[in-house]
Formats: sequence, C-alpha cells, structure tokens
Amino acid sequence: MGALHEGHISLIRQAARENTDVFVSIYVNPTQFGVNEDLDSYPRTWTEDVQKLRALDNEFATASAENGGVAAPGRISAIFAPTTKVMYPTLPPTSKINGNGSFVTITPLANLLEGASRPVFFRGVATVCMKLFNIVTPERVYFGQKDVQQSVIIKRMVKDFHVGTEVRIGPTVRDLDGLAMSSRNVYLGARRRKVGLVLSAALKQAEKAYIAGKRARAEILRAAHKISTAISKEQESLHPSQRATFEVDYISLADPESLEELETVDSSRGAVLSGAIKMHPLEDPQPGEDCGFGEGAVPVRLIDNIILQPS
Amino acid sequence: MGALHEGHISLIRQAARENTDVFVSIYVNPTQFGVNEDLDSYPRTWTEDVQKLRALDNEFATASAENGGVAAPGRISAIFAPTTKVMYPTLPPTSKINGNGSFVTITPLANLLEGASRPVFFRGVATVCMKLFNIVTPERVYFGQKDVQQSVIIKRMVKDFHVGTEVRIGPTVRDLDGLAMSSRNVYLGARRRKVGLVLSAALKQAEKAYIAGKRARAEILRAAHKISTAISKEQESLHPSQRATFEVDYISLADPESLEELETVDSSRGAVLSGAIKMHPLEDPQPGEDCGFGEGAVPVRLIDNIILQPS
Repeated sequence: MGALHEGHISLIRQAARENTDVFVSIYVNPTQFGVNEDLDSYPRTWTEDVQKLRALDNEFATASAENGGVAAPGRISAIFAPTTKVMYPTLPPTSKINGNGSFVTITPLANLLEGASRPVFFRGVATVCMKLFNIVTPERVYFGQKDVQQSVIIKRMVKDFHVGTEVRIGPTVRDLDGLAMSSRNVYLGARRRKVGLVLSAALKQAEKAYIAGKRARAEILRAAHKISTAISKEQESLHPSQRATFEVDYISLADPESLEELETVDSSRGAVLSGAIKMHPLEDPQPGEDCGFGEGAVPVRLIDNIILQPS
Repeated sequence: MGALHEGHISLIRQAARENTDVFVSIYVNPTQFGVNEDLDSYPRTWTEDVQKLRALDNEFATASAENGGVAAPGRISAIFAPTTKVMYPTLPPTSKINGNGSFVTITPLANLLEGASRPVFFRGVATVCMKLFNIVTPERVYFGQKDVQQSVIIKRMVKDFHVGTEVRIGPTVRDLDGLAMSSRNVYLGARRRKVGLVLSAALKQAEKAYIAGKRARAEILRAAHKISTAISKEQESLHPSQRATFEVDYISLADPESLEELETVDSSRGAVLSGAIKMHPLEDPQPGEDCGFGEGAVPVRLIDNIILQPS
C-alpha cells in the first residue's frame, strides 16, 4: 500500500536476494478498509516511495557490479501501481460487508483477531492479493511477519486455491525503541509512541515464559496481562497533558495455522503470540509537543506478534 | 461433473478443434450442492465416461492420421479427476451458506435466477473453477451455453480476478425432441420428459416475438407465459396417472452481462431469455411405465435459455 518504510525495504531486499526480478506493488486497496476506517487519510507518499525504490535499485546495481555479476542480487524490474478500475473492473469497490462484488473469503481465519474488529479487512486483502498474483504471476510473494494473520491467510489462500506461488515471510522490522514499523506510526507522536511500546513489552514477557518452559495459556499470558494492566493504570493516573491512554483489544495465544486460541501450546507446533491495542487520541496536547501527523486526534491501532517456535 | 452426455462431448470436440491438448475435468463438486440437494444421488458414471473419452480420443487420432497430421485436431491429454482432499485441502467442503472455508463469491450475479433458489450453488462453482484453473492453467476453458448463468459468472470471475484464460461457450446440445441435454434428465422418465418440453417451447415463442421486432418485456414474455400457463392447466386437469405437473420457478429476460431483469431490450446489447421449471414427482406410476432413474420419485429442475442476439 506504499508509504514505504524499512519493513517494506527489508522485504524487497529479501526478494532481491532470492529472485532475479522484483515487482513492487503499490496500491491502497479500498476493499480492505471498513466504512469508518481511514481510506481517505491513509498515508500516500508516491514520490518518496519511488525515490526510495530508485535508490534501492541503484544499490542492487552497484552490488551486482562489485560482484562482477557473480551472485548478483535481483533488480527492481517494475512498480505495479494499478488504478482501481484495473483492480475492480466491473463493480465499484465496496467497504460494506454485505456489499456486492467479486471476492475471496477465507473463513473462519478472516473473522478472528484483527477480523473481529475489522470485518471486511481480510476479504479485501485476500481479494486484492488473488488479483495481484494473477496479474503478476510471481514465483514468490513476500509478506511481513508483522501482519501475522495476513500471512496465515495468504498462505491458506495459496494452499486452498492451488495458487502457483511460494509465500515467503520476512521478519518484523523495528525502530530502535522496539516499535514494529507501520505506515500508520506517523500518527502516534512521541507521547503515544512511548506508551505504545507496552504491546511489544507485554508479548516479550509472555515469550520469556514460553522459553522458560511454560506451556499453559494462563502461565504464558499472565506476564503479558500484568504489564499491560500496570501501564494502563499508570497512564490513567497521570494528568491528561502527560498521559497516553489505550485499551487492549486482544492478547492472543493461537495455533500457527488455524489461529484458534490455545489452552496449551503443543511444543511440536509452537504458537502465535499476538496482540492489538488501541491508542486513544492524545489528550491536552502541549505547545511544541510532537503530536504526530493529524495532531494526535486520530486513534491509532497497534499490532505486534512473536512466533513461539516449535521445539 | 462427469455423467458425460453429448453436450459435454460437443464441448470437448470444440476444445480439440481449437487447441492441441484437452484436459477433461471430472469432479462432482460438493460445495455447489445445497444441504437438501442431490449430492449423494448425483449420477456418477466413471467407467462409461472414460470409455466415451477413449472413443472420442481415438476418433481425434484417426482424423489426425487421415489428415496426414495437417490441421490435426487436439487430443485428450488427460482426465483431471481429483479427490476432495486435493480440491479442499484444509477444511471439509461445506454446503451451508454460513459454513467456513475458502470461497470465491461473485455477487449480485450469484444471487439471481438459479441462485435465488440455490444459494450456495454459484459460490461452489466459482470456487471450484478458480481451483481448476489454477491447477491446470488452461489457455482456454469451455462451458456450455445451457448453464448460461454459470457462463456469465465464470466470465465475470475471469475478468474481475484477471485469470489468464479465455472463456469459450459452446452451444446448447439438444435431444431430438428438443430437450436441452443434462445429466439429470435420466431422472425424468417419458411422461415428465414430454411435458418438460414446455420450457423450451415457451422460450422459443418469446424469441419469436423478439425476432419479430418486439423489445418490451411484457410483449416478449407474454407468449412464453401463455404457453406455460396453458400446459400447466392442461396437465392439472388430467388424471394423476396421465399427468406430469410442474411449477415455473422463473422466466427471465435479462441483461447479458449483469443478468438484471430488463423492462426493454437494448437491441445493441441483446438479452438472455432463460427459465427454470420444477417437474413434480411422478404421480401414480403405471406398471411397465418408463419412470426414469429413481422411479419418478425425484423432483427434477429443468433449465433452458436462448440468447436474444444483438442486432
């Protein structure tokens, strides 16, 4: 969807290591935004995106020349930036769950976790990806681990529909403070950003419990809930000009393929530990404060996850 | 779905004229049958199907040899007869409209006409065809005109999802009495079959009105309704041992692409004239009577259509 950040760049680097030709798709897909979501305000940074891709491709070219063409990395062969009329040639794209159109639905996966609060989201993602895959016919497609449910759903779609492509997942890229990169982070501002780290901190504590040998849901998630509750209480107690309040949407411990909630982790399968929080709009912004794009008025949903590896 | 008849054979001949290699798929797709439909009793004639295809392929080989290899027709390169575990690798196929799975939905097309009484039908058809197309990656796919709504939906799916195949539609093949061929016709028996001709007769009368220059819905459909009403009354008046009663599900005059009902036909677009009737179970079967497979106890839905050509 463009608004390229280091997470995207990392996926393109991985693609270029593993392939000769890399196509980058940049398309803000309307059908994955709900009626009340941020389609209109979603960051669009076409000029900067193209600059970044040009610089990256130059880097690939230089690396190739320095290698004397040996073990040359792939190049960015094209940016695929279709119009909506190309992607939705017949009916206009709908954001309504009962709206008409040609869709791919992957249930129950699409109804869980993120899908519980975003009912059209994964229908839109699966639909646009099926189209992208049919148009580009890539040997491999690259998705980021950060959107873990998306990666599980795309893998399921490829398997169930026998799509002739291999799904590759690149690791979540984080800023220095540990926040998982997201195009929507620009809306956070400094105060909310710092508090938003609660999510990755909570998940990390739960991971520690797993690594320490815990397998029961309650034992793994207890540490996560403890952190999120403590930080939430702490923020609520501060003066509105100081705090950044949030609510936890979910903290999930789920099967890596079905995303069904687990009471006990099967060590041979591992699990997906994931969570979502909603940062409330910034209260009482101070003069000169870094409030982020949108002056802190936009609530920001943050998601993150850790794969508990099978052992 | 197998139970091959001359309609299927005609499509395979067309495919062999237009291509070098023909794949024939034979798969009774569970997801296109409703919960109360005839999945279990749908005719399965694998041995006969293979014999027919072998004979047809021999005929292609002979024709090719006689031509000295010039203008050689294609050959039947394979029968694709997958298991349900191949077609539905993750979740078991569901016949419930709210059932879980990976599906392609094409609305509103799938809700009209046949879809009004068969809510899961076209979801199942579109889904299984997307899988078939991805597995076989055919340059062209062949469907029969008889299932006109299916052909419209497959064309829409190919367009909207940018599937890299060309949809070719072969003409409806009819028995000598004019009945459109269908694998389910074996359930009719002689008495119901004869009365079932009412559908094609009614559509033909409507076509006559169009050819004579009528463009208004009422003027075109009047003739069709007159025939179906007359024959229905006639049958109701006969002794149960003589009659074959039926009900008209719909007689439709619709746009060729959207399948929306038309008040007036646009001569430049033409229209699809289609209908469905349900033949009731045979009453009071007589000793020695040809009641068809299932002893006449099975209600049989008949569909037929005529394309009103643009002028």
